[in-house]
Order: sequence, then C-alpha cells, then structure tokens
Amino acid sequence: MIRTRLTERFGLDHPIVSAPMALVSGGRLAAAVSNAGGLGLIGGGYAGMLGGEPDLGAEFAAAGNARVGVGFIVWALDRAPSLLDEALMHRPRCLFLSFGDARPFARKAEDAGVPVICQVQTLAQAEEALDLGAAAVVAQGTEAGGHGGQRATLPFVPEVADLVARRAPGTLVLAAGGIGDGRGLAAALMLGADGAVVGSRFWASREALTPDAMVARAQGASGDDTVRTTAVDALRGVDWPAQYSYRMLKNRLTEEWAGRESEARAAFGSLRAAYDKARAEGDLDTVAVVVGEVAGLIADRPPAAAVLARMVEEAEAAMQDGAARIV
Amino acid sequence: MIRTRLTERFGLDHPIVSAPMALVSGGRLAAAVSNAGGLGLIGGGYAGMLGGEPDLGAEFAAAGNARVGVGFIVWALDRAPSLLDEALMHRPRCLFLSFGDARPFARKAEDAGVPVICQVQTLAQAEEALDLGAAAVVAQGTEAGGHGGQRATLPFVPEVADLVARRAPGTLVLAAGGIGDGRGLAAALMLGADGAVVGSRFWASREALTPDAMVARAQGASGDDTVRTTAVDALRGVDWPAQYSYRMLKNRLTEEWAGRESEARAAFGSLRAAYDKARAEGDLDTVAVVVGEVAGLIADRPPAAAVLARMVEEAEAAMQDGAARIV
Ligand SMILES: Cc1cc2nc3c(=O)[nH]c(=O)nc-3n(C[C@H](O)[C@H](O)[C@H](O)COP(=O)(O)O)c2cc1C
Ligand SMILES: Cc1cc2nc3c(=O)[nH]c(=O)nc-3n(C[C@H](O)[C@H](O)[C@H](O)COP(=O)(O)O)c2cc1C
Repeated sequence: MIRTRLTERFGLDHPIVSAPMALVSGGRLAAAVSNAGGLGLIGGGYAGMLGGEPDLGAEFAAAGNARVGVGFIVWALDRAPSLLDEALMHRPRCLFLSFGDARPFARKAEDAGVPVICQVQTLAQAEEALDLGAAAVVAQGTEAGGHGGQRATLPFVPEVADLVARRAPGTLVLAAGGIGDGRGLAAALMLGADGAVVGSRFWASREALTPDAMVARAQGASGDDTVRTTAVDALRGVDWPAQYSYRMLKNRLTEEWAGRESEARAAFGSLRAAYDKARAEGDLDTVAVVVGEVAGLIADRPPAAAVLARMVEEAEAAMQDGAARIV
Repeated sequence: MIRTRLTERFGLDHPIVSAPMALVSGGRLAAAVSNAGGLGLIGGGYAGMLGGEPDLGAEFAAAGNARVGVGFIVWALDRAPSLLDEALMHRPRCLFLSFGDARPFARKAEDAGVPVICQVQTLAQAEEALDLGAAAVVAQGTEAGGHGGQRATLPFVPEVADLVARRAPGTLVLAAGGIGDGRGLAAALMLGADGAVVGSRFWASREALTPDAMVARAQGASGDDTVRTTAVDALRGVDWPAQYSYRMLKNRLTEEWAGRESEARAAFGSLRAAYDKARAEGDLDTVAVVVGEVAGLIADRPPAAAVLARMVEEAEAAMQDGAARIV
C-alpha cells in the first residue's frame, strides 16, 4: 500500500481515482474500484444532453453500497443543472467537475458536504479551482484519452503543485493523463501529485461499459495511433468549447479529416445521423474509439481490482528500485 | 548520487545529459555539464546550413579537456555530411542524432568507436534506432522545447522501454521533454528511463549561449505560454520535414499565425529577411524564444553545475519520500 494525502483524506488504500468517463464509467466499474481500495467514480458525462447515456439513478443503484463519486462535463451540466441535485441525493463521495465554469455547482456540492475535485488543463484554470476552494485539483495532460487540452502531464503537474503550495497548500493535487501502469503512478507521485486519475486503463477493465471490439482495437495499437482532434465533435454536432480537443484512436474518419478542423467546424453536425448509425452498428472506422496514449501499454482486459493491484505493486517496485539507486 | 545503467556505461556521476541545442549548447555549457558529472553535448545543430551557427572546432576548443559529445539535426547533416567527419576528429564522447534517417551517420560513428544516441518521437522511429544498433534511444515528448513530435513523455517513455526490453535489452533508454527539476528526473527514472536529456533547463543556465533577454522572458512565463507550431519555420524559410513542429514561447508572430499553418507553408520563406533582422535586433516579439513547457519551472539562471546538483538532490529526496510512502 502507498500512503499519500489523498488516501488519508478519503480513507483509501490506494492513491488511485478512476475517471468519470462518459458512457464508460458505470456504477459497476466505480464500485469495483472503490471496493478494491481506490476511489471509483460514475461518469455523469453530458448530463443527458448527448442521448444514449446511462441513467444516473440506475448507475448509483448498480454501485450498491460502495462509496463512489460522480463527475460531469460542466458545460453540458450547465444545460441540465437539476441533474446535479439528483446526483447529490445519492450522497456521492465527491463531485468531479471538468470543462467549464465549476463555480455554481461547486457551491451546491459544498452545501451538501460533498468535496469537489476540479480537473484542469491550464494553469489559469488551476487558479480558478483554488479560487472556488476545490478539495483537489487534477492536472490533466494532453496524452489523456477523451477530451482535454494542450499541456503535458510531466511538466504540468509540478507547475500546478508549485501553485498549490504557494496559494492553498491544503489542496490535493492529482495527475491525469498517460498513467496506465505502476510506472506512471510512481512518476505522478514523484512529480508532486497525491495520486492519479486513471481513465484509459480502467476503460479497458472488465467492469467498464466499453464494447469488447473497442478494447481489442486498443490492444493492437501503440500510443502513436492516437490523435487529438476537434473535427469529430464538430461533425457529430456536439458543440464542445473550442479549447478542448478529443483524443481517440486514429480511424478512417479522423484520417479523412486530419488537418481540416476549420472545414469540419463549418460542416457542424453534418455527420450526426451517420455517426449515430455507426455507433449503433459498432462501425469503429467511423465511431470514436476513445482511449489515450496509454493504448500502447494496454494488452488485456482484467477486472478493475486487478488493474489497481498491479499498478500499486509496480509503483512500489519502481519507487523501491529508485531509492536503491541512491549512493 | 544516483546510479543507473547510463552512469555506469558512460562513467558519469549523474544520469543527466544536456541536450545538443542548436545555437545554445556551446562548448562552455557542454564542458560545464561534463565537469559536473553529467554528459555534456555540443549542439552541432543545422550543420552550418542555417547561418549564424557557432563553429564546431571553436566549440570543441571551448570545451577544453572535458569529454563532451556532439549532436546534429540529421536532415540538415544530410546536406553537409563532411561535418560529421570533422566532428568525429574531435573524438566526441557520443554522437546524438535526431530528426532524420540516422543510418549512414551511425555507421561512421560506430567505425570511429563513438556510441550513437538516437532521439525519437514515435515508436516506429524507436524501432529504427534499435535496427541501427544505437547505444541509447531518447524518447522525446511533445512538451520539449525546440523541435519535436506529438507523443508525451509520460506514456511514451514506458512504451519505448517495453520495446527495448523486448528487442534489445542492452540498449539504454533516456527520457527527454519536460524535465526541468528533480521531480521530473525522478519521474523519468520511474518510467523506466536510465537517465534524462535536459534541454530547456540548461538553456537557462549561465554557460548557455542564450541571450539574457530570452531567459528573462521565460522566467515570467508559464508552460501555458508555449506553443508548438510549424508556421515559424515556414515563414523563416527553414524546410523542416512536416512531422516536426517547433515549441517556443507564444509571441506576436506565433499568435498572428495561430491556426494558419497551411497558409504559412504557402508563404514559405516570406519572412526570412524580417526574421533575420529581428534576430539581429533581439526583437523577441518576432524571433522564436525556444523553450519548452518547463518554462513554468524556471525562475533563475544559475551555473549548469548548480542546475545539475539541485536536480539530483531533489530527485533523491523525491525517491526517498516515495519509498517511505510504502506501508
Ligand atoms: C473514454 C473516456 C471518456 C472520458 N470522459 C470524460 C468525461 O465524461 N468527463 C471527464 O471529466 N473526463 C473524461 N475523460 C477524461 C478523464 O477524466 C481523464 O482525464 C483521462 O482519462 C486521464 O487520462 P488517461 O486516459 O490517459 O488515463 C474521459 C476519458 C476517456 C478515456
Ligand atoms: C533551444 C533549444 C534548441 C534545441 N535544438 C536541438 C537540436 O539542435 N537538435 C536536437 O536534437 N534537439 C534540439 N532540441 C531538443 C532537445 O534535444 C531536447 O529534446 C529537449 O530540449 C528536451 O526537452 P526540454 O526542453 O523540456 O528539456 C532543442 C531544444 C531547445 C530548448
């Protein structure tokens, strides 16, 4: 076991949080992670605006008695703010907010006694998270699967850690993006993080809602085979704010639109029906296979508890090996 | 002191290599790094094709008796291959090759008994480096200052380490990109690297050829203030292969051409004269201030030996702290 401020503050065995992945992190995954000593999160995703999203109540029910948190995409929650009230009624372990102005939601969570975790992509956003009194700031690097920004985890985490140390040293710092095994977890701790937010690696765990065919594709891929793009959101008609791009495996659609992002924006929504059809049919040449650069480190689909155990064991070995190198 | 396969193989005190930065890594910096127990490299850069580059012989002379290596931008060396012969006459400690097909040069170095270090940006390039029998492969992340690719250091290094372990376990793995202090060095070691290649942090050391005004700008910047672009090379008329972009501080020129990379390519060389004038005049709103995301971790301009000592001390502390967290 690895003890950090995160494990102490949240009563965990392991300094690992599973990311609230839209369409992927259901109650079963969240519960599996929490029951194995991490902090499991349900993906509240687009707060229902996307369609085809799992029902929040059903996912909390699937989590049973496990203490799980919940996360939302903030600019989507803006459009269905009552979903936050519904989520808070389930007494989540924490509220994880990304991609938007978290202030109004953070206040409500605070009133309900639910700690707020803000995921940020820039130093300016980290400042905002401290302004609103977040319990934890997640510095998310561009290597992450799903939506994100431009900074890379390795230099971004220490810069955020320095900011936190200056302004609000009681705030936890978490690292997200590129952490797929114990080497990544150990690296995150070296960088000054109190723990890691892991998405893609749990995306490829047994309890995730990810279709098997998607995981199989990722298993055959290297991190070189992923790309960040804004074209897919534009074409499928999801109006993500311009500063966020979407990391996924390269496929026919991303290759067709590579380097044509402004053209895709001009064709906003033009592939909506085709995209929905592709999703229904499992056509992975069109639909996004959303995984980060750690695709290159993923070779199997074990239970989430095994992912966690392996990660901690490897991290311990790496840190012990590191300490033994000091002469 | 931290012992790794790199320190053993090259007889170093510290697992740190200073990057062969074009126009920045002269003999004085390289010697300072080597004399302080790291591996110092002279930046052979564009092998003279850019103009205004320091003379290789003079830089080796400036390094005095210190055992330093030398690095080149391979696609530029292609155009002046005799410079390699000149470099090898100085019996460099190693030959560091990036950005091109290293095979012909690697063979010459091998014949001269000089170990070859290949810096790569993709897994496919890492395979090529193993094919040619490199002594070390440097996995360079996109957060790096200067030219580079798309992969991020944190997930790229372990993926390269796994490849090396499978194919050529005797080959060293180094990490480059985003390593600006001891936290970054410790993280690199956790990821499976045998050492770190450090550019930007030495760019802001006393012995570097960097103008003070540039370092001052970086000191006031965060990593958020850097950008990767291909526009600047196009406008100044340097024909970098399309897959490599250039990380620098955002300035008036990068902002003016943001999102207009194909337009800049069409205007190839149109700002050549203006750019040279800006360089001569020290106009930092036009000329590239080439530093990576670690700009946000740079607050001073100490001697290279102090950079090294601080980095190692911090890394040791981080690794000891990590090991102490295991319960
Ligand atoms: C399939 C997938 C869906 C995601 N959906 C969300 C989301 O709905 N909300 C969110 O805040 N982050 C989302 N993320 C990003 C994660 O919060 C996290 O930053 C990321 O997964 C960490 O990087 P990694 O994938 O390399 O572990 C998603 C990531 C993936 C892979
Ligand atoms: C000012 C500057 C110039 C560079 N020039 C070269 C070069 O000529 N050849 C090369 O292989 N790499 C060059 N690099 C990249 C370095 O080799 C190295 O990958 C990078 O500096 C590591 O990332 P960091 O800047 O975050 O330390 C340069 C980097 C900087 C900052």
